[in-house]
Amino acid sequence: MVGIIMGSQSDLRVMEAAAEFLDQVQVPYEINIVSAHRTPHRMIDYAEGARKRGIRVIIAGAGGAAHLPGMVASLTTLPVIGVPVKSSNSIDGWDSVLSILQMPGGIPVATVALDGALNAGILAAQILGTTDPVVADRLEKYKSTLKDRVMRSAEELRRGDRDVD
Amino acid sequence: MVGIIMGSQSDLRVMEAAAEFLDQVQVPYEINIVSAHRTPHRMIDYAEGARKRGIRVIIAGAGGAAHLPGMVASLTTLPVIGVPVKSSNSIDGWDSVLSILQMPGGIPVATVALDGALNAGILAAQILGTTDPVVADRLEKYKSTLKDRVMRSAEELRRGDRDVD
Amino acid sequence: MVGIIMGSQSDLRVMEAAAEFLDQVQVPYEINIVSAHRTPHRMIDYAEGARKRGIRVIIAGAGGAAHLPGMVASLTTLPVIGVPVKSSNSIDGWDSVLSILQMPGGIPVATVALDGALNAGILAAQILGTTDPVVADRLEKYKSTLKDRVMRSAEELRRGDRDVD
Amino acid sequence: MVGIIMGSQSDLRVMEAAAEFLDQVQVPYEINIVSAHRTPHRMIDYAEGARKRGIRVIIAGAGGAAHLPGMVASLTTLPVIGVPVKSSNSIDGWDSVLSILQMPGGIPVATVALDGALNAGILAAQILGTTDPVVADRLEKYKSTLKDRVMRSAEELRRGDRDVD
Amino acid sequence: MVGIIMGSQSDLRVMEAAAEFLDQVQVPYEINIVSAHRTPHRMIDYAEGARKRGIRVIIAGAGGAAHLPGMVASLTTLPVIGVPVKSSNSIDGWDSVLSILQMPGGIPVATVALDGALNAGILAAQILGTTDPVVADRLEKYKSTLKDRVMRSAEELRRGDRDVD
Amino acid sequence: MVGIIMGSQSDLRVMEAAAEFLDQVQVPYEINIVSAHRTPHRMIDYAEGARKRGIRVIIAGAGGAAHLPGMVASLTTLPVIGVPVKSSNSIDGWDSVLSILQMPGGIPVATVALDGALNAGILAAQILGTTDPVVADRLEKYKSTLKDRVMRSAEELRRGDRDVD
Amino acid sequence: MVGIIMGSQSDLRVMEAAAEFLDQVQVPYEINIVSAHRTPHRMIDYAEGARKRGIRVIIAGAGGAAHLPGMVASLTTLPVIGVPVKSSNSIDGWDSVLSILQMPGGIPVATVALDGALNAGILAAQILGTTDPVVADRLEKYKSTLKDRVMRSAEELRRGDRDVD
Amino acid sequence: MVGIIMGSQSDLRVMEAAAEFLDQVQVPYEINIVSAHRTPHRMIDYAEGARKRGIRVIIAGAGGAAHLPGMVASLTTLPVIGVPVKSSNSIDGWDSVLSILQMPGGIPVATVALDGALNAGILAAQILGTTDPVVADRLEKYKSTLKDRVMRSAEELRRGDRDVD
Repeated sequence: MVGIIMGSQSDLRVMEAAAEFLDQVQVPYEINIVSAHRTPHRMIDYAEGARKRGIRVIIAGAGGAAHLPGMVASLTTLPVIGVPVKSSNSIDGWDSVLSILQMPGGIPVATVALDGALNAGILAAQILGTTDPVVADRLEKYKSTLKDRVMRSAEELRRGDRDVD
Repeated sequence: MVGIIMGSQSDLRVMEAAAEFLDQVQVPYEINIVSAHRTPHRMIDYAEGARKRGIRVIIAGAGGAAHLPGMVASLTTLPVIGVPVKSSNSIDGWDSVLSILQMPGGIPVATVALDGALNAGILAAQILGTTDPVVADRLEKYKSTLKDRVMRSAEELRRGDRDVD
Repeated sequence: MVGIIMGSQSDLRVMEAAAEFLDQVQVPYEINIVSAHRTPHRMIDYAEGARKRGIRVIIAGAGGAAHLPGMVASLTTLPVIGVPVKSSNSIDGWDSVLSILQMPGGIPVATVALDGALNAGILAAQILGTTDPVVADRLEKYKSTLKDRVMRSAEELRRGDRDVD
Repeated sequence: MVGIIMGSQSDLRVMEAAAEFLDQVQVPYEINIVSAHRTPHRMIDYAEGARKRGIRVIIAGAGGAAHLPGMVASLTTLPVIGVPVKSSNSIDGWDSVLSILQMPGGIPVATVALDGALNAGILAAQILGTTDPVVADRLEKYKSTLKDRVMRSAEELRRGDRDVD
Repeated sequence: MVGIIMGSQSDLRVMEAAAEFLDQVQVPYEINIVSAHRTPHRMIDYAEGARKRGIRVIIAGAGGAAHLPGMVASLTTLPVIGVPVKSSNSIDGWDSVLSILQMPGGIPVATVALDGALNAGILAAQILGTTDPVVADRLEKYKSTLKDRVMRSAEELRRGDRDVD
Repeated sequence: MVGIIMGSQSDLRVMEAAAEFLDQVQVPYEINIVSAHRTPHRMIDYAEGARKRGIRVIIAGAGGAAHLPGMVASLTTLPVIGVPVKSSNSIDGWDSVLSILQMPGGIPVATVALDGALNAGILAAQILGTTDPVVADRLEKYKSTLKDRVMRSAEELRRGDRDVD
Repeated sequence: MVGIIMGSQSDLRVMEAAAEFLDQVQVPYEINIVSAHRTPHRMIDYAEGARKRGIRVIIAGAGGAAHLPGMVASLTTLPVIGVPVKSSNSIDGWDSVLSILQMPGGIPVATVALDGALNAGILAAQILGTTDPVVADRLEKYKSTLKDRVMRSAEELRRGDRDVD
Repeated sequence: MVGIIMGSQSDLRVMEAAAEFLDQVQVPYEINIVSAHRTPHRMIDYAEGARKRGIRVIIAGAGGAAHLPGMVASLTTLPVIGVPVKSSNSIDGWDSVLSILQMPGGIPVATVALDGALNAGILAAQILGTTDPVVADRLEKYKSTLKDRVMRSAEELRRGDRDVD
């Protein structure tokens, strides 16, 4: 249902968070390494065949001059979520962010925060949840765990456990 | 089906492009002015009631320290598309971009380019198109008009009409 | 009298400096974890009830797309001091700074430097000191300790103790 | 009660918004041109004499390498609100913002948005409103006019008056 | 011999300077509109067929999240010169610059200055001039015209014609 | 005594302010167009011959990737003042500023603000004024005119002439 | 055939990647330390003599206010590839990037990514490969190794070896 | 003859390089801690008394919102060299650089690179060397040691000692 791709193996460290979230809300996904620059034909096949293979949302992560999310978006009408990765040769992440976010009119990429793969996973589930009430329900539950965690921290702070984590 | 909101009337100049695209692909939408900072309770009611009112995707545009997309995302599990608007008091748009894009883990906003309301409209349709084949089909047609326009420009250029538009 | 809030427990490491200063000048305060994105209703209750509970100044710290200070400011007419926190997923702090500083006309946030919680504590005391001569007096004393410390360093340097600290 | 100062006459265009707001909420103020770089002694006299003259909050605006707010803050324990002004020789306002915001520990400046003099005026009134219920009340009324304006725009938009202003 | 491509007709305004320089040094070229995002297959055909068609250097201009130069470089071993174009929706040109310049190891793009199409034309001629002495000679002559123009300006300045051009 | 140089005639618009100040304090100067990139040998001759020709301070202005100030500094032990010029093809002036300011250890350039040619002229006079009491005296007088102008503006503001200039 | 130069020995750590690539594709090169600022005459001799010595492409790396690539380009009509080096005193690499990239019209530098010496080596080989089919062939082979590496990573990921490298 | 000042003892780590250079070329200097924000009156006394005490050049280093160089420049007509220090709470040094460099017309600060205290020392000596031939001569010698060091590195590289230092 969700296709997770990334430009190189080194992006896996960041992108795993998307997969882990989809595991948590029991949304099936496939995960692949597809490089816009080193395997352009593989990228084209991936993007053009995605809808037929049953993929409904694509999550694409890449760093530096990151062309994978935008190029995949140019080859499909599925929603593409872009994750800017702060790779080792990046200029503080600005290159990844701008080359994913600033897509021209006509070809959107749904961009999340730098290294924001967790949010990419949640967003993919939200997209599925627009028509799948079971996923929508799991997202509500996840949302309440976020709240619970804040409340617990707040409680600990009030009890005087002002330790810095 | 799609809810378009913006922080102030002055954002309409940018945000109309989303509405116009949805008109073009015949996706119903509602459009509203909802300010995170000046009408916080209206924003909460809007966001919390959206799913029940039948909204399936929210497009939220705002400029400067732009909190509307992120706050709406905190109040719903619907996908929220954020449009950074380059408002008059913005620092070249960086404030709008960063305060929409850099959401913390747990609360995604699908951010598009600065003033990228057209792409927000397309992305909303793509999300609906994941399960609605009629919308998906219209998106394919739109995509081919993009290609046609390039081919026409290329043809004009080849014929020597090298006028700058 | 002073309410210190922050978006997550991890901000405590930075925000404690505000509390420590208020301790030092004997200004009472409460400290809480209130997340704009994960506990929006708690934030609303906090902000709207603050003046009635006797809070006169609010210090709010947050990182990344930091909406807590601005949203609290939208819900109260108390002065709100914003502390941009350089969180782990921040783009060098620019996101925190701009999403707190660049508030639209009508909803001010008194922003201090990145990770500048000490200055937030001092500013809160200065605000109380506009009408409380005891606090004002303690601030004068603190100011003279700043001067004394410089004079001591200068003296050490003159005596040849040019060790780098 | 409020002292408004600015580095040069050309800043008046921006800084008047602070004065106009204080007029609106009937808070008395004085307005002056005081340059850190061209009249340093006048600045010192101004800052050191402010509390005695009855000033309770200082609003200081300056552009470029903007030292006025920070230097005034070094000379008084009154709260100082800094307004970064986007002057003609500024690098897109970044110099003004950073040289006012990034004050060292010990000397806070309550910084507002670039050219954010209106918010400086509101913040000054909020500071006075911490102990003056009349001012606090006027601030509540102002806040509700902000809301009313949004509601009116929203109404116009609903009635189909989708003209861009 | 030189292939000039650009993402859209609106880039022609900038890219013409490359063509004009090649005219001046009598290097043959073809000029085309090829969009990475709107005509990805046309781009692939163009890039993969370039060497066989006799193209020896490719100049590719694009704005915003500019993927054309990098994607073409991924599809050929010809040298690709990238021209970042400051398009209307660009964030001051930073997006164009970074998404062309910051290519990953393995896939170089020879990037020139923002809107630097003239220099792209010169660089293409320099590449041909490494083995073509006629082109090399024309480049030497062009270089001396640059010098002559400076000397003439210097002479005018000395004669007192200090008019600003 | 002072040598003013600039990379192209178009910089004259900015650089004239240095010459005008030196006229005002009666410091002799020569003004020339010397391009690091288009007339490198002329630059070398200029820089290496400067001290012998009686030049004691060099003011060099350039825009974009501005190498003139730094290269001149590499060829002389005279103090070189660099003026970053915001030329038409500059990225908001950042390129000019950084390529003049960030000189490596061993080769200083005394950098002034973007388009800050007036300050370059003053700094040149200050350098001469370290040993020439006549120049030092004129600088003191100039400084007091700066103060006078502020005092006059302040007076006008007090008299109610709150017109924006 | 290829001349590799760099501003200081400390750049060797980055620049070696260019030499290693040229070794791999058996393109002869010479490697030298030539400083624009500390040995300007050596730089001039190097640049002006390069074509005669048989050099056909120059790779120049430098950090901070990096003038070496641009100055060499001003002294030859050979193609010059610039490598911005993120040196220890650099402001996050921005100074190196902008002072190499933003060359004025007339004097191109083919700029690669920050610390992108590998790509500089590849680009030099691509330039030679425009007329040398043996080099062109080796570049094709290198390109296919890039693809192979991606395919192997993809295979490992599919087999469940999702270890982060 | 040269006065070296800095805002706090922690700047000494950077600023010592200026003193060490002056030792090397035997130019007398005094070194002091003078804080614009914590000891404003000490700063005024220092700056206004400098010329009379025989100081001919002032080197001032500071970090963050760095007001010391500019404020000292406002209080003297001696040349003031500003050293932006990348302090711990700085936003990558941008705040220090901009708040020193971007001085308004009338009050120059001769700014050197971030943490560029060595160059500040050299520049101070160059200023004295405009009239002192002994200092000028020592600067020439220093310049030739820079060249010698490059030549030695170049020689080692040629001999195959391609070790990264």
